[in-house]
Amino acid sequence: MARIEYPEAVLGLIQELKQLPGVGPRSAERIAIWLVQHPRAHPQALSAALLGAHETVSSCARCGFFATPEGCSVCAHPRREPILCVVEQATDVISMERSGAFQGRYHCLGGRLSPLDNVTPENLRIGSLLERLEEESIEEVILALGADVEGEATANYLADLLRGKCQVTRLAQGLPAGGGLEHADALTLARALEGRRGL
Amino acid sequence: MARIEYPEAVLGLIQELKQLPGVGPRSAERIAIWLVQHPRAHPQALSAALLGAHETVSSCARCGFFATPEGCSVCAHPRREPILCVVEQATDVISMERSGAFQGRYHCLGGRLSPLDNVTPENLRIGSLLERLEEESIEEVILALGADVEGEATANYLADLLRGKCQVTRLAQGLPAGGGLEHADALTLARALEGRRGL
Repeated sequence: MARIEYPEAVLGLIQELKQLPGVGPRSAERIAIWLVQHPRAHPQALSAALLGAHETVSSCARCGFFATPEGCSVCAHPRREPILCVVEQATDVISMERSGAFQGRYHCLGGRLSPLDNVTPENLRIGSLLERLEEESIEEVILALGADVEGEATANYLADLLRGKCQVTRLAQGLPAGGGLEHADALTLARALEGRRGL
Repeated sequence: MARIEYPEAVLGLIQELKQLPGVGPRSAERIAIWLVQHPRAHPQALSAALLGAHETVSSCARCGFFATPEGCSVCAHPRREPILCVVEQATDVISMERSGAFQGRYHCLGGRLSPLDNVTPENLRIGSLLERLEEESIEEVILALGADVEGEATANYLADLLRGKCQVTRLAQGLPAGGGLEHADALTLARALEGRRGL
């Protein structure tokens, strides 16, 4: 005897939700049922938000941040210092902004060098980075890339490329704020020691 | 200086995603960015699935399972035995079906008695349950409710109501399949002992 199953429309919704990052089959089922049954669910509003984001948000050809038909808020931001913070992803701009410690401009590479994943310099937004250096009279480039192997490789590649064109710096490595020595791994401690500063 | 933030459309999408069950602010941000940026993301398909489910799926007035314009697959299912399994939620029907151990019909209460949450017998689908008993010449009602306080209270209430109308049974309580004695709590063990069966 054939089993009773959810209606096709619910199965289709579960199928779509399952593809979202961090949403497994169980969560997808739970979310789909909630969207169909719960009085506080607004599937129409979510659907509209999805279409709205899909239609209006693209990637800024200049800096790589999110652009809308009105422009890109990074490029349009007034009175930013001529210091360029190079990050991997557009989302890293938001993390930097939330730190409140940076008043300059941003450039998103759109990834990092990773030969194993076929990501070479041609796949990154490096051409527009070089253009911006001249056009915007950038004084300093801060390489704000991840502290892992691929982030370091990308930083080294860019440092070689930019040498002589402007000052190039990178983020400090060391103990994370609030982290005790007992939670730091050996490599973090070695780098914290290496980068020690006078008091 | 005003911080750079995500475009409005992305913030709106994050806002909507945050309301889904089990999706916190961080997951919502991650999913929204993925939907906007990832080449494998299909926000239009998800949006269509949402609207489709919202428009076609409702609750069956008779049994409480999901109904579509074509009808309800529980009520339309052919050749089911005249045994009625009473569950709390429509989703419990799927769990029972996946067990493969039941060949009868289903009735979803739409919840369980919970005076603290203002859920009284009037809020549950009990009237249609009584109607079905007569109309479908039901021989047995299996109360497949949760093994917690509210589930038991609901089962006791229904057992009183149905006594004399048909045979009333409930699911066994005891050790879960694959569970050793060392993982069972005291109450589960007490009930497993109480419900022991001859070999």
